[in-house]
Amino acid sequence: MKKIQPKTLSGFMELLPHEQILFEKIKSTIQTNFEKFGFLPLDTPAVESSEVLLAKVGGETEKQVYHVANGAFDEGKKLCLRYDLTVPLAKYVALYGNQLTFPFRRYQIGKAYRGERPQKGRFREFYQCDIDVIGLNELSLYHDGELPSVIYNIFTQLNIGEFVINISNRKIMKGLFEHLGLQEKSADILRTIDKFEKIGKEKVELILKDDFLISQEQIQTIMQLATLKASNSQIIEHLKNMNIQNTTFTQGVDELEQVCAVMRAQGVPEKNFAINLTITRGLDYYTGTVYETFLTNHRSIGSICSGGRYDNLASCYSDQTMPGVGISIGLTRLFDQLLANQIVTAQKTALTQVLVVPMDQIEPCLGLASALRNQSINCEVYFENTKFKNKLSYANKQNIPFVVIVGQDELAGNYYTLKNMQTGEQTKASVQDIVDAVKNIN
Amino acid sequence: MKKIQPKTLSGFMELLPHEQILFEKIKSTIQTNFEKFGFLPLDTPAVESSEVLLAKVGGETEKQVYHVANGAFDEGKKLCLRYDLTVPLAKYVALYGNQLTFPFRRYQIGKAYRGERPQKGRFREFYQCDIDVIGLNELSLYHDGELPSVIYNIFTQLNIGEFVINISNRKIMKGLFEHLGLQEKSADILRTIDKFEKIGKEKVELILKDDFLISQEQIQTIMQLATLKASNSQIIEHLKNMNIQNTTFTQGVDELEQVCAVMRAQGVPEKNFAINLTITRGLDYYTGTVYETFLTNHRSIGSICSGGRYDNLASCYSDQTMPGVGISIGLTRLFDQLLANQIVTAQKTALTQVLVVPMDQIEPCLGLASALRNQSINCEVYFENTKFKNKLSYANKQNIPFVVIVGQDELAGNYYTLKNMQTGEQTKASVQDIVDAVKNIN
Repeated sequence: MKKIQPKTLSGFMELLPHEQILFEKIKSTIQTNFEKFGFLPLDTPAVESSEVLLAKVGGETEKQVYHVANGAFDEGKKLCLRYDLTVPLAKYVALYGNQLTFPFRRYQIGKAYRGERPQKGRFREFYQCDIDVIGLNELSLYHDGELPSVIYNIFTQLNIGEFVINISNRKIMKGLFEHLGLQEKSADILRTIDKFEKIGKEKVELILKDDFLISQEQIQTIMQLATLKASNSQIIEHLKNMNIQNTTFTQGVDELEQVCAVMRAQGVPEKNFAINLTITRGLDYYTGTVYETFLTNHRSIGSICSGGRYDNLASCYSDQTMPGVGISIGLTRLFDQLLANQIVTAQKTALTQVLVVPMDQIEPCLGLASALRNQSINCEVYFENTKFKNKLSYANKQNIPFVVIVGQDELAGNYYTLKNMQTGEQTKASVQDIVDAVKNIN
Repeated sequence: MKKIQPKTLSGFMELLPHEQILFEKIKSTIQTNFEKFGFLPLDTPAVESSEVLLAKVGGETEKQVYHVANGAFDEGKKLCLRYDLTVPLAKYVALYGNQLTFPFRRYQIGKAYRGERPQKGRFREFYQCDIDVIGLNELSLYHDGELPSVIYNIFTQLNIGEFVINISNRKIMKGLFEHLGLQEKSADILRTIDKFEKIGKEKVELILKDDFLISQEQIQTIMQLATLKASNSQIIEHLKNMNIQNTTFTQGVDELEQVCAVMRAQGVPEKNFAINLTITRGLDYYTGTVYETFLTNHRSIGSICSGGRYDNLASCYSDQTMPGVGISIGLTRLFDQLLANQIVTAQKTALTQVLVVPMDQIEPCLGLASALRNQSINCEVYFENTKFKNKLSYANKQNIPFVVIVGQDELAGNYYTLKNMQTGEQTKASVQDIVDAVKNIN
């Protein structure tokens, strides 16, 4: 029989079991925190009609969409794979709005697809972990202050080092540009400022002057804000003292101040958030609060959790105004980067806690395994007929922390031999001793 | 702005939040049991190269495959969506075999896609929950006896009524047909017998006689086995007493007897499994033990968990012989049928345990919410500025069991008002009282 070369598509993450265990653990931490803050689970289809999914898409993203050709009974229908979880959410609230309770808090952890140019750290199939709160007509600003608390809890529990939630409000720069008469050029200016870290202050100023014809005085005002290094409270104070007579600006500063206050009241430490007025992500999309999150010692990874406030989620599908605020963790890329930068390690992962090893008779092991499982212990019996050495080696390779040996001596003496695979220590044990030993190391 | 009609494709399940909560609960019960038996998580891509995925497919399934057209940088590559989780597993073990530990026990819970004719209870995107144990060259028969124990634990815990795991061994009928000189007609005969419940004994016998030219005596022998009503032990006894001199038959009977013994030793009660020699599922695929599972009071739903033993998983991709045994739960269809037959109900589901309701000041509620979350309570603060009545109504609509009211009296008196939404009872409470009340109803 001619063999087909087994392979996995590039850009599609596929993990070995010990890595998958770690991935699932991180996913589960994220999910638990989403639920702790009262977000409801959703699981919309990965395939949608192209008309619905591509209602608003454009540019690079549209080119990257995967189109799905019909199954046997779908002739003529145009389908595609979702490229994020936000558009399906917009469809969902427009479609089921009258059966939902608002504010509608939902989380979704699922795969999305983009046919991006293959390169290291970029994935064509990737998990998004999203939370959004959607209001009907209006939505309290308190939600904007609560989301960073969710981020803070997740990244603290993941224990992946120091992180800072960067926060801003789009209205501040928008108001400033209105005030300076530069609103037409605002996107250009923000995108230029965004290069600050890469190309340095002088080049940024040169581009602003030569390419976008901004006056020296205006550049000074803008750059002063963009490069402001001060505590969160000092930045708010500074913004207030600028005395800029523009209602958008003033509103932005007020909102940012309130959001910071809510973050503090929720217990987010000052060192874990920083006002950063130059966040450019989602310029066409976010209208108020915006977030990005960086690992202090691995800034090159980029933002590991981003989001913000938007005015109207489902404007493509519904006449109802639905403002919202949300954040998203790109888990596949994050996980890849955490491993690549050795911030986490998948070497010693295991789900199974006990391997029961029969010396000869298997039957007496079955009841023991059931008894351990009934006490919520993940347990497996080694069934293959092979040398004792190979059975222990199986446990070792899988990082299973305990082996229980069941031989003639044990059966005659009415006990089990419990072997701690880390220390090598062997003890006579009852079922309860085994349970206690396993629970003690967790 | 022209609106686009929001819609979800037919055949793609999309649930309301209270239904999704129930779905996730069932999924989680399945996953927990898979892990309790030492299965390792896998999460292979939903998109694979067509060459790999369609290596062995044929017939109706091939017509139903969804083809994926290229993203911007995939020109020329042929891709498709997986139509099950078994073919990706075969690819996986062939590709990573030398990095895996055998026997390789994996579970995967993920979506698969088939463009089937749309009809009630059929889905084009559906969750499969699969476990398989894969051996190198050989695999102990004990695994065949262990899988029904996993099934038994899952369906007992799901509490969806009486169920019976039907079990057989392909070698028995195969050996019988060899013995009768009918091996060429075996598939035809089995498919005919399978219609027994629908069309009755007489019609089955007529088809066997007229269409397949089976002799009256042979029909008698076959039908006697197919319609045998007796206890599991009696059926084994009967098979042994038939004195059929065929090694395949004898081996099948021996294996079935051993598998039943392992099931009993694992604690599967006699009433939850039944030898049924006529299981026809996967005729081209399964070679030994086969399973199907039925709800006693809802047999029309069909098998809710099926599987079996196969000789060589990855024969398309690898020269290595990898026998295996596995079972699969079609969760999407099962869930749909459980709801449709009112075997489960999604009316009163909730994940959030406490809604904190501010009477005027919100800030004092934030610390309380954090304190409750730190004690592993899912908790949400009602932020919108609306009437008290509406805040309680939000909790009611979401089935949130407890509301904590925080007003001037509470702040002045240094207590919280805890309202049990089910009984309507209101009590003065401390943080610890709230925690205790919530944990008491769980």
